Amino acid sequence: MIAELEAELASIVGREFVHTDKETRQICSKDYTENLSFEPDIVVMPASAEEISSIVRLANVHSVPVIPRGGGTGLSGGALPVYGGICVSMERFRKIIEIDTENLQAVVEPGVITQVLQEECEKHGLYYPPDPASRGSSFIGGNLAECSGGPRAVKYGVTKDYVLGIEFVAPEGEIVNAGGRVLKNVSGYNLTQLIVGSEGTLGIITKIFLRLIPLPKHRKVMLAAYRSIDDCAKTVSKIFQSGITPSALELMENSAMQAAERQLSKKFPNNDAAAQLLIEVDGNYEDALDKDIQSIAETVMDNGAYDVILAEDRNKMDELWSLRRCIGEAVKSISEYKEEDTVVPRARIPELIRGVKKISGKYGITTICYGHAGDGNVHVNILKDNMNDDAWEKNLDTAIREIFEHTVSLGGTISGEHGIGYSQKAYLPIALGKAELGLMKKIKHAMDPNSIMNPGKIFDEGS
Amino acid sequence: MIAELEAELASIVGREFVHTDKETRQICSKDYTENLSFEPDIVVMPASAEEISSIVRLANVHSVPVIPRGGGTGLSGGALPVYGGICVSMERFRKIIEIDTENLQAVVEPGVITQVLQEECEKHGLYYPPDPASRGSSFIGGNLAECSGGPRAVKYGVTKDYVLGIEFVAPEGEIVNAGGRVLKNVSGYNLTQLIVGSEGTLGIITKIFLRLIPLPKHRKVMLAAYRSIDDCAKTVSKIFQSGITPSALELMENSAMQAAERQLSKKFPNNDAAAQLLIEVDGNYEDALDKDIQSIAETVMDNGAYDVILAEDRNKMDELWSLRRCIGEAVKSISEYKEEDTVVPRARIPELIRGVKKISGKYGITTICYGHAGDGNVHVNILKDNMNDDAWEKNLDTAIREIFEHTVSLGGTISGEHGIGYSQKAYLPIALGKAELGLMKKIKHAMDPNSIMNPGKIFDEGS
Repeated sequence: MIAELEAELASIVGREFVHTDKETRQICSKDYTENLSFEPDIVVMPASAEEISSIVRLANVHSVPVIPRGGGTGLSGGALPVYGGICVSMERFRKIIEIDTENLQAVVEPGVITQVLQEECEKHGLYYPPDPASRGSSFIGGNLAECSGGPRAVKYGVTKDYVLGIEFVAPEGEIVNAGGRVLKNVSGYNLTQLIVGSEGTLGIITKIFLRLIPLPKHRKVMLAAYRSIDDCAKTVSKIFQSGITPSALELMENSAMQAAERQLSKKFPNNDAAAQLLIEVDGNYEDALDKDIQSIAETVMDNGAYDVILAEDRNKMDELWSLRRCIGEAVKSISEYKEEDTVVPRARIPELIRGVKKISGKYGITTICYGHAGDGNVHVNILKDNMNDDAWEKNLDTAIREIFEHTVSLGGTISGEHGIGYSQKAYLPIALGKAELGLMKKIKHAMDPNSIMNPGKIFDEGS
Repeated sequence: MIAELEAELASIVGREFVHTDKETRQICSKDYTENLSFEPDIVVMPASAEEISSIVRLANVHSVPVIPRGGGTGLSGGALPVYGGICVSMERFRKIIEIDTENLQAVVEPGVITQVLQEECEKHGLYYPPDPASRGSSFIGGNLAECSGGPRAVKYGVTKDYVLGIEFVAPEGEIVNAGGRVLKNVSGYNLTQLIVGSEGTLGIITKIFLRLIPLPKHRKVMLAAYRSIDDCAKTVSKIFQSGITPSALELMENSAMQAAERQLSKKFPNNDAAAQLLIEVDGNYEDALDKDIQSIAETVMDNGAYDVILAEDRNKMDELWSLRRCIGEAVKSISEYKEEDTVVPRARIPELIRGVKKISGKYGITTICYGHAGDGNVHVNILKDNMNDDAWEKNLDTAIREIFEHTVSLGGTISGEHGIGYSQKAYLPIALGKAELGLMKKIKHAMDPNSIMNPGKIFDEGS
């Protein structure tokens, strides 16, 4: 069966782009989600929508799973071949087809690395703001599949807010053109936004039309230190209420900063603070930013900050950002862990964090909170640390459930930017009711009657 | 059959909220789309999602169409009962449930009038930017159904960009909660954005969660006059390329301005200009706006404008806006007409308008172009004027087809903010291929197997 598939796939993409060796299958068995690993049977590397269409049609004939794979940086196991099958690696789709400086748009293939696109845009004075931590290796197609966010989302929105249109191969093999080069479009259903964030379960994206914006000319960064994490969290909504929308507003609790310091072998100011806010403003006029920063400094001091550090030159700003940027990796290097991606209305962050700490106290587990506080998105890393295996096994799932139930009780949900994928699937019913899940399954079944497209993700179809 | 339905509906919503009288049915037979009229058999006025769920379940049992109706201001016949049936008027859903000043969100019922919501937000220093021409009488639920835009979309986006979540009744009667009070959400498919813009064909919206932003403190308006419509159109993309994003950038050709002057019985400056741009900037710092306006003035003069008029005080700004705001109605009062809602990448506007004029010349019809040039969205009003009935009959459809084919050839599409509804349905295949339409029909059929939800809109299911 595999041998037969292999031959048929080779006739579609060429023999050199079909791999069944152990090493390639191993590479494609993982992403950045904890220690999960599921090998595909075959890895193919197509180079056109037409080839993908043929692969997908073939998979339908044989009832074999098809798993699209981008940069492999996902945080919820969305690209893992949990039932084996054909891994469709998008690494040959690496062309920036056009940076349209007249219309402020980009046309790209899904295998373009996010940062490569951003740097190309900047050369033209243009800005593609979505900025996930993995931007140095994530593919833009994967960013669409998971609707990635990052720190700039608070002012500029997430990936979906920049996608004007896509070409994708639907689960039965049709090549579909959704949306396009226009900023406004009510010409039929919004298939674009149905596919963005659907984690590869409704099709494989083969071309992307993005909206760009003019690159802001100036920015300034501030670090505000607090003796109480609660005061720090409470400040977040106050800044927006003052009428200012920062271009980033990140929260880091002390243990996150310490992990970052160890990672970078470097000391940062106020490293004994219970928590800090990293706040960035950007815009075209420096004096307007000075006023914004001044106003924000007053707000943070009025709300319990004990010190404020301002960075205006590029090096100093990059240094403060390096602290924030390395936390994800730093925290994960401490011990075995499970990362959660909670999101609540921003004024509820103090309650969210208090609840997380209460639950972790109850189960004797360590949690480290940090992330995009400006849009209410707090990453909660649960660390095994020196807990014994039995206790970890026994408590982890229960603690996660309680954290998510608490999140949802605050008007929040269980993933802001990492997706549900495979690793969060069991928890989705905490956030969604029977009616919502039922409707999603109806859509999935209508589009993918043979359940071949990235099966086992988001929800189990039969369940 | 109608009598039986009437009794069953009365048992759901109460007798006083079920109407079969001629007058009510007449009112619900129309919207603002040209002279179309289709009467429903019954009009019901429910007051809760549960009541609507029962109505929809009943409609499935009897295979009777259900047509949701908002303020009746639609421009593509989306609310017209083209196959009769039960018109579900949302006029009792008129509560602003909450303006959440801590999280900058609003929770509203779909029957709230857009402008009422905007004014309530402004009282709290908050801004709900989508601003359709009909905002004084349109319902916010209808704005979602059609994904309304308006002049501020160029900087702030359209209705969909403010919808965080909805409660809606699906075509089989389930009450579904999609999205919610969070700014980021990748927890399952984006049902919210599938419903927004689906023109009432996939469900009836019963509650809406909106994102708000801080109200900008200042704005300034400029009117730039051109001797050539082509120069005027060419300027549009130049302004964005200079790095400034205006909060409105509207184009009006001479005949549109003249119609507005007649409508208001008032003369405006440079009323002999071939075309004018109305440009607005907004923000928190007046001196930054001065610089923006200065820079825009240079751009427009460099690109062929012969005069620029600046409005900085409220009255003067309102006066210039009144010119633009009344064009829609003014143009329609000239003669029998058909309004189109073309949208192209903004740098293609000159070609779009040249093409429209060429096509209208060829068929001897009058066209008036105006609208949201900043986002490439040009309303083309085709006037019967003093053309005889036979020629009008004979040429109208062909001319529209050619205009749309031209629009699509420029990378554009056939509706930016009015929707396809009933009146544009025949033209949708110009913009969408078989694969796209096929997928939309699959989704429609999966969600609405008995085809009861606003049938005959966007596409014919059987076709």
